[in-house]
Amino acid sequence: MQIAVYPGSFDPITNGHIDIIERTAQIFDRVVVAVAINEEKLPVFTVEERVEIIRDAIRHVPNVEVDQFAGLLVDFMRQQQSNVVVRGLRAISDFEYEFQMAQMNKQLYPQMETLFMMTQPEHGYLSSRIVKEIARFGGQVDQMVPGVVATQLKEKLQTG
Amino acid sequence: MQIAVYPGSFDPITNGHIDIIERTAQIFDRVVVAVAINEEKLPVFTVEERVEIIRDAIRHVPNVEVDQFAGLLVDFMRQQQSNVVVRGLRAISDFEYEFQMAQMNKQLYPQMETLFMMTQPEHGYLSSRIVKEIARFGGQVDQMVPGVVATQLKEKLQTG
Amino acid sequence: MQIAVYPGSFDPITNGHIDIIERTAQIFDRVVVAVAINEEKLPVFTVEERVEIIRDAIRHVPNVEVDQFAGLLVDFMRQQQSNVVVRGLRAISDFEYEFQMAQMNKQLYPQMETLFMMTQPEHGYLSSRIVKEIARFGGQVDQMVPGVVATQLKEKLQTG
Amino acid sequence: MQIAVYPGSFDPITNGHIDIIERTAQIFDRVVVAVAINEEKLPVFTVEERVEIIRDAIRHVPNVEVDQFAGLLVDFMRQQQSNVVVRGLRAISDFEYEFQMAQMNKQLYPQMETLFMMTQPEHGYLSSRIVKEIARFGGQVDQMVPGVVATQLKEKLQTG
Amino acid sequence: MQIAVYPGSFDPITNGHIDIIERTAQIFDRVVVAVAINEEKLPVFTVEERVEIIRDAIRHVPNVEVDQFAGLLVDFMRQQQSNVVVRGLRAISDFEYEFQMAQMNKQLYPQMETLFMMTQPEHGYLSSRIVKEIARFGGQVDQMVPGVVATQLKEKLQTG
Amino acid sequence: MQIAVYPGSFDPITNGHIDIIERTAQIFDRVVVAVAINEEKLPVFTVEERVEIIRDAIRHVPNVEVDQFAGLLVDFMRQQQSNVVVRGLRAISDFEYEFQMAQMNKQLYPQMETLFMMTQPEHGYLSSRIVKEIARFGGQVDQMVPGVVATQLKEKLQTG
Repeated sequence: MQIAVYPGSFDPITNGHIDIIERTAQIFDRVVVAVAINEEKLPVFTVEERVEIIRDAIRHVPNVEVDQFAGLLVDFMRQQQSNVVVRGLRAISDFEYEFQMAQMNKQLYPQMETLFMMTQPEHGYLSSRIVKEIARFGGQVDQMVPGVVATQLKEKLQTG
Repeated sequence: MQIAVYPGSFDPITNGHIDIIERTAQIFDRVVVAVAINEEKLPVFTVEERVEIIRDAIRHVPNVEVDQFAGLLVDFMRQQQSNVVVRGLRAISDFEYEFQMAQMNKQLYPQMETLFMMTQPEHGYLSSRIVKEIARFGGQVDQMVPGVVATQLKEKLQTG
Repeated sequence: MQIAVYPGSFDPITNGHIDIIERTAQIFDRVVVAVAINEEKLPVFTVEERVEIIRDAIRHVPNVEVDQFAGLLVDFMRQQQSNVVVRGLRAISDFEYEFQMAQMNKQLYPQMETLFMMTQPEHGYLSSRIVKEIARFGGQVDQMVPGVVATQLKEKLQTG
Repeated sequence: MQIAVYPGSFDPITNGHIDIIERTAQIFDRVVVAVAINEEKLPVFTVEERVEIIRDAIRHVPNVEVDQFAGLLVDFMRQQQSNVVVRGLRAISDFEYEFQMAQMNKQLYPQMETLFMMTQPEHGYLSSRIVKEIARFGGQVDQMVPGVVATQLKEKLQTG
Repeated sequence: MQIAVYPGSFDPITNGHIDIIERTAQIFDRVVVAVAINEEKLPVFTVEERVEIIRDAIRHVPNVEVDQFAGLLVDFMRQQQSNVVVRGLRAISDFEYEFQMAQMNKQLYPQMETLFMMTQPEHGYLSSRIVKEIARFGGQVDQMVPGVVATQLKEKLQTG
Repeated sequence: MQIAVYPGSFDPITNGHIDIIERTAQIFDRVVVAVAINEEKLPVFTVEERVEIIRDAIRHVPNVEVDQFAGLLVDFMRQQQSNVVVRGLRAISDFEYEFQMAQMNKQLYPQMETLFMMTQPEHGYLSSRIVKEIARFGGQVDQMVPGVVATQLKEKLQTG
């Protein structure tokens, strides 16, 4: 059985992420969405909220689980008995950072492989950061994130 | 009448920005320089100072106005009855960020078009951030920014 | 009156090109689509065929004309009394080549400005070369080019 | 059973390609190396020679087959009942071309997914074109290609 | 006598930096490693620690000295009577930033030349930031930095 | 004595190349401009013409010689007892190709170092190919190449 891990901050998950999860689930037997605990980055959503939101958003895909991890991704991979990481690629800057991380992970864990999947062109502009910026200024993000994320972003970011 | 909006932080305006404004004013009937209010970024110049400096620096170009805006650019565009944004492009990293913003803005406001104009090669290295860094260490920035900016940067950044 | 020139080989025109023409026609008073005569490149369509196909494909846009030119673009620009060139940008390699051309044209004709417009993300993969390659192998190109182009490509490239 | 197709010209296969094949074979149940018949490109090795060389070079990997195809990759994929293409990524220019092809293939065959795998850094400079160029001038290519390729290149390219 | 300056933060020095120093020392008569004092960046190692660590790590290269500088690099260059800066290049993002800095420095000090040297491919993923991130999570960095750095990082970053 | 080799096709030499030669001659004791004999590329100038033109164009720089070479650059380097190659870098695509070549050359000749020097921004658009294209259509190239090149290009390319 081939297990793929899809790691990220997902603060919050976007429709671009969900598209990658759905396509990965067509290829691998099981997909583990791994939410990174980055306390230093001051996330808008707690890791528990992020896990719960993703579980809700990918309910329709049977072979996907959601988990959280702290520390190095390679340690989480070994623990999950998986050596396949999947990452979405949008643009050049993604590409470079991702290559650097993939090369570093292979140095730390030689059996590990990172597979890159092209983001759908219509999601090319989407990022968690941009979604938060739009929501902060009262813009519509309904077409960029699952409904539950749009509602919660409104509550969390639009004060007064 | 075709109105173009040229948005930015302009903290402070550089000779590269002024070149883009002058060239845009040759093409469009009216150009609105739109200074973004980004309180989070701790600007060196207040938005009022930035507006005043730009007004002074582009006095010689008749069809240019300077204004400020908070929030989403698309809301400012609608309010100005303009659907043309102009942006200068220097390098690859500019290119990617700008494309992402243009695609996002088109999603939020489908009539909006972003036109990109090449920065003159001799201004290719110029950025507000680099100008501030040089001024902070006592370097000469007279050839990079209007005279009034050079003077005020000296006062603001060189303490003691 | 502001005239924009949109130059290219257009061998053949794609839906990506048509999208750029339609959007440019919203911004400028008149748009001249300028078909380059590149005999060395052994085009699939003659310049006359290309001009006729484009005229047919943009019939619904009133302020657009189609013309042909040989030699340097700057000479054609002067002759058209236009100093605004519009170019679509898809990706990094486009960007670099286009910047090089824009810088060269500005050296040859200092008043000339090149404005870049982002290709719609769903057309990002489209190019005349790729369309011809697919058609040559009998693939469907109906969603990539105007109907008349799809029909003629079939006749020209799929030899019995 | 998950089948991955690894397409290319392989004129000739390099150690970089072989590394990708070995790593892909660890992830998928079966890997089909698909040699493209590109008569227009005037290959140094015939398609039959290329297929035979690859079979010899990957003999040690049990779940890999070698096949040839003409025409569109999507047609070959359907025929192989596979919807996973694997491609190695070396550098930015690779990245752009590969993304364009992946987007085009998804347009022609929506179930098809292209997965990208990072070339090992020490193979980053390797390409079939560079290997042929070195061999043509009598340089050593023994560390860049399988032994049989090095020998045959010498015979084919170093005339008199 | 040709003196080359190799400036950086070196917080901490990596095997990638050391490789650049060794190769630069083969080309120039004298190499000055110039440690930048960036108090704002909250370094893990003090500038004194960084200077001492580098001195220890390059003890085997006779024509290299280590020094520290605050302020503008061009002022340090003039003071060292050197007009050659050497910088390692890893990837595209490096490339752009480095070009911008080189162009700015040439504006401030026209005689100054920046020479770029390719990082060895196996060090392509290495950066001081990534090394610190791995060490913080208890990962092995012994193959990425000199032994003394690995030991001190463990002490400084892994708090009980 | 440190000798640097500056290789290229130089068909023809441009003001961008000359700028790199002048700056390299400030840093190294001796510079050898190495004109590659590429018969397959159908050059406009013969290798003898190119050598003579460059000798004429760099007469004012005492420590520069011009030579020609066929075959692999590494063989020429060994013969010249030099292990320093200098290359100008303009843009991203240059960067990638140059890195690939540098990495390949280091594989073939481990002592060899390639140093990259930034092209002056005002020469960023210049290439031998573009100069020939402009000259072919009767455009002015006087500001892009030495006078003798401009004259000879006119004779060679503007027929009848």
